[in-house]
Amino acid sequence: MIGEVPNTKVGQEFVSRRLAHEAGVHRPLQAGICGTKKNGAESIVVSGGYKDDEDYGDVIVYTGHGGQDSSGSQASDQSLDDAGNAALVTSYLEGLPVRVLRGAHRGSRWAPVHGYRYDGLFRVTSYGSKLGIDGFLIWQFRLEEYDGASALKSLVQDGYTEDRAPVDRSPEQLSAGNQSPKRVATTVQRIVRNSAVKRQVKGWHDNCCQICGLRIEVPGGSYSEGAHIQALGSPHNGPDTTGNVLCLCPNCHVMFDAGAIMIRDDLTVVRGGIEGGTLRTQPQHTLDMECVRQHRERWRHA
Amino acid sequence: MIGEVPNTKVGQEFVSRRLAHEAGVHRPLQAGICGTKKNGAESIVVSGGYKDDEDYGDVIVYTGHGGQDSSGSQASDQSLDDAGNAALVTSYLEGLPVRVLRGAHRGSRWAPVHGYRYDGLFRVTSYGSKLGIDGFLIWQFRLEEYDGASALKSLVQDGYTEDRAPVDRSPEQLSAGNQSPKRVATTVQRIVRNSAVKRQVKGWHDNCCQICGLRIEVPGGSYSEGAHIQALGSPHNGPDTTGNVLCLCPNCHVMFDAGAIMIRDDLTVVRGGIEGGTLRTQPQHTLDMECVRQHRERWRHA
Repeated sequence: MIGEVPNTKVGQEFVSRRLAHEAGVHRPLQAGICGTKKNGAESIVVSGGYKDDEDYGDVIVYTGHGGQDSSGSQASDQSLDDAGNAALVTSYLEGLPVRVLRGAHRGSRWAPVHGYRYDGLFRVTSYGSKLGIDGFLIWQFRLEEYDGASALKSLVQDGYTEDRAPVDRSPEQLSAGNQSPKRVATTVQRIVRNSAVKRQVKGWHDNCCQICGLRIEVPGGSYSEGAHIQALGSPHNGPDTTGNVLCLCPNCHVMFDAGAIMIRDDLTVVRGGIEGGTLRTQPQHTLDMECVRQHRERWRHA
Repeated sequence: MIGEVPNTKVGQEFVSRRLAHEAGVHRPLQAGICGTKKNGAESIVVSGGYKDDEDYGDVIVYTGHGGQDSSGSQASDQSLDDAGNAALVTSYLEGLPVRVLRGAHRGSRWAPVHGYRYDGLFRVTSYGSKLGIDGFLIWQFRLEEYDGASALKSLVQDGYTEDRAPVDRSPEQLSAGNQSPKRVATTVQRIVRNSAVKRQVKGWHDNCCQICGLRIEVPGGSYSEGAHIQALGSPHNGPDTTGNVLCLCPNCHVMFDAGAIMIRDDLTVVRGGIEGGTLRTQPQHTLDMECVRQHRERWRHA
């Protein structure tokens, strides 16, 4: 369950881990990271258990899991093979939101005074390893809060911004901006839905670019991008369906979106007017050829 | 002058194009697009002159320049070679903000009743060509408003989010979110500054990737990314200087940020432990080798 959980508000407090568990905010009763390498991290608990953590409120430098002895000191190196750390790498590579539960502790003024507080959705923006205070290797993940800003951010990154016809919103509503809690909640849910469509396509192709065949391998995983063939919203109005999404490497994604690459009905790939191989397909992935035609039409005069 | 102009507020009205010109909001007295292919589009005027335009308030589908006869009907095809259209392509490729000035006309409920109104910064999120209502080729650009959301968005895209030490902001301020006008104005200015550092580096390398040598060519321009060697903000705290920025293609950027590529002090490029050539350099571009070392240190255990 990635993203917001039903019936839980940002800022909601829980007396115990068990109550947070029952609410579905953070399911494990002990582990600080809930997630898997395959699906990413659902949620983390920030409760001062790692002395290398840094908490800036809307930015958290979160130390990965592992390597501690019974006293809570680092006694050995951490590893990206640890399931929780691998999950956070997947959240980074997939751009997935992570629920943050803060527990009471003295190390951060952002921690609740008692118990636990759900502080909303964060995203992993960078990570890396270093020698921790105790002299052992730790992995650290920078998490940034999904406020209205970053919610819309991911939306726009996904090429998805809902067009509002004039009837939908008054100028007053418009000038009030896009940051109403309702709007943000909606957008965050849409991020997750939208990601699901893209992740499906990326999974079918095992992160191999359908145009050049490259799969970008990085420590802890591989990377590709879901690219809408026709962008959502005016003037292109492509559908948010797997048939309108390609699995591409970032380079082919840029070239496809800017008209340097087009695809013929017979799936021949054309780069700058020159034929260059055939689009790679997977049996489960049925392309919406009308979107392919519209994309070609959009760029035929370039 | 890209971005906000001094002493002008979003929503400020101007009786005439000349007054908007004198304020520096939109400098040409006739042309609807102010900008060049090299520097991108500073500003556009949306005044109903092109019947294919669509205005959704915070999303504008803007028809490019050219091809109209004296009656204002399309009489010939538009071209990306038109300086104004080429400028909007550069704004798209560089992710630069464009000032939008709306003029009074009947076609949009978002237009002012009289004269002109400065409606803030927008970004070009997609573009393409089609046959317009009059049956000639037009180019259209989708512009989305830079509200607080998208301002912060670009910031985060740039790997730049200012860490706020606990002393800086109270929990009340924090829970109020990042959308205060002041904050947004600051962030938008920072986008532009930040872009300037990256554009300098990309210009020195003529958009050729310093790692693989690729320059991505698209209709109307070429594309590369400015990549911070050490990300800004905790825990990496890299400086926002040209010495901490590489000109990379998107694929090498992903691999570099996720530790699949490292650079030795002798500028040998190491991919997954295997040496693969030497980093491409330019005489004007002095690398901050301390950042290169820190990046390597951050990933040496991957």
